[in-house]
Amino acid sequence: MSRMTILTEAELRKIVKLDLAAVACVEDAFRALATQRVAMSPILRLDIPEHRGEVDVKTAYVPGLDGFAIKISPGFFDNPKLGLPSVNGMMVLLSATTGLVEALLLDNGYLTDVRTAAAGAVAAKYLAHEGAKVAAIFGAGVQARLQLEALMLVRPIREARIWARDAAKAEALAANLRAELGIDARAESDGAQAVAGADVIVTTTPSETPILMAQWLSAGQHVTAMGSDAEHKNEIDPEALRRANVYVADRLTQTRVLGELHHAIEAGLVNPSTEFAELGQIIAGTATGRRSPYDITFCDLTGTGVQDTAIATLARERARNAGAGTIFDS
Amino acid sequence: MSRMTILTEAELRKIVKLDLAAVACVEDAFRALATQRVAMSPILRLDIPEHRGEVDVKTAYVPGLDGFAIKISPGFFDNPKLGLPSVNGMMVLLSATTGLVEALLLDNGYLTDVRTAAAGAVAAKYLAHEGAKVAAIFGAGVQARLQLEALMLVRPIREARIWARDAAKAEALAANLRAELGIDARAESDGAQAVAGADVIVTTTPSETPILMAQWLSAGQHVTAMGSDAEHKNEIDPEALRRANVYVADRLTQTRVLGELHHAIEAGLVNPSTEFAELGQIIAGTATGRRSPYDITFCDLTGTGVQDTAIATLARERARNAGAGTIFDS
Repeated sequence: MSRMTILTEAELRKIVKLDLAAVACVEDAFRALATQRVAMSPILRLDIPEHRGEVDVKTAYVPGLDGFAIKISPGFFDNPKLGLPSVNGMMVLLSATTGLVEALLLDNGYLTDVRTAAAGAVAAKYLAHEGAKVAAIFGAGVQARLQLEALMLVRPIREARIWARDAAKAEALAANLRAELGIDARAESDGAQAVAGADVIVTTTPSETPILMAQWLSAGQHVTAMGSDAEHKNEIDPEALRRANVYVADRLTQTRVLGELHHAIEAGLVNPSTEFAELGQIIAGTATGRRSPYDITFCDLTGTGVQDTAIATLARERARNAGAGTIFDS
Repeated sequence: MSRMTILTEAELRKIVKLDLAAVACVEDAFRALATQRVAMSPILRLDIPEHRGEVDVKTAYVPGLDGFAIKISPGFFDNPKLGLPSVNGMMVLLSATTGLVEALLLDNGYLTDVRTAAAGAVAAKYLAHEGAKVAAIFGAGVQARLQLEALMLVRPIREARIWARDAAKAEALAANLRAELGIDARAESDGAQAVAGADVIVTTTPSETPILMAQWLSAGQHVTAMGSDAEHKNEIDPEALRRANVYVADRLTQTRVLGELHHAIEAGLVNPSTEFAELGQIIAGTATGRRSPYDITFCDLTGTGVQDTAIATLARERARNAGAGTIFDS
């Protein structure tokens, strides 16, 4: 007989939050990626164009963690017409020792939201200048809000500018942030104005054409681009990567094909074989990030299986301690 | 709220069996692979050498089927020391229209066993000569037995020879087959003797060195090799592929890297770019299989995601009709 624990989204939202523990857990995962014999497979991707659907499957094994996650992330972009969310999905947590399924995390993408925002916090913690007070957020979706919350965990952010293609959504998010986070947040319809004077810029959109221009950047700024996780997505003017003093990938083998780096390579601005630091190497101290307050730093996040394994094992541990979830014997 | 059905191995064993319906379902899947715009991703594979573990994830979308499976297949080869089976796993069935998870099939590899054996039946149905009476089976595990049962569904098999590295296991399987299937089964310790006079030969082992030699083969025989699903596995003397008049792959992009073809290419016996027929093309009639009773035919099975999607949708349909499974709302 085998026994597994099933955790619903509602249960997971109670036990895992975007907080310093989640940031530490994701930071540890990136450190492991740079220092340990992590096994991380290339992303499995299936496209179902008839239904504007796609599925990504990610996994990674991190030595020292007793479980590893296989994450199934479907995105079906006609779902809103049916009254359903576009993005869903779940994680399967397997024992790293026996391969037995130990938990099903029916998170509908919630844990991905948390670990993605946590990676933004880690990027800012290691690359933004220490006194960063002003954030510019591109996008008005779930990650726009979470990335700002993540920044606030690691930097003394006091002001937020929200730019979105849909100005009404930017206004609504800014109002919500003022009310709920008590931060000086405002919508900004001009991207250049949003960026001017910002210390940290985070792009969170599924844009397929650049929304952040190289000439808008100025000395000392840090940019995290987290919207692109597929070949056709491109938020950042490729020239901006050349303008940055420091480019950091979450995983270079991924950003070369899925991230903003991919478009800089395609544009002929970066040699495909150029080696860049990965976030884990900066954390581990084996590569250098920001060298001065005047550097422009750039972090290209495409999402990695180690983050999923890290957040899934955190969720399982929390569930055990809280006695949360449904036991299913078979 | 979302609703899914959870089916246990015990429930799945009651509703899905290795029978002509399962064979037809897998046959249809291979036909679709050759005739429709099937989306089938390369296999995701993760290795955990510290625990002699590996995980494969397979998926495929078949137009016309309302669901698609993502199959998680862990193999952890130290498990028997812990009193656990080496192979486990489950399938997640998602809606092809919305990407929502509709069913969890906690089959521990049972459905894979069925769809793998069914593919052996399909291969024999299209490639073995019609009057095939004598089968030689290499291996004494679950697939050895199921592949013989599968052959008996499509050919008038009356005699079975069982060869296995461990002669005692071959004897035990032969005795079991005599008792349970009422077939003239005997263990044969000499591989060449097992093959001499056989009409169909099926290899079902995880061998890493050839166990079936080219010079043992004679006119009219059909060989199905289904043991190799990874680069290092190799059951068949590469020369045997050159000796065969007809070579058929389940999926050529897979057999070139995972199957017996891979080793014939490595040995320099086959050009890597040589085009061969796929099983689906033979079924669809767009490629020719056996041309005469004297042809030696060879089918190289590495296992495909379309088989998983086919058997998973069959299981879900049967479960609906039978009212089987546990409903889980979240």
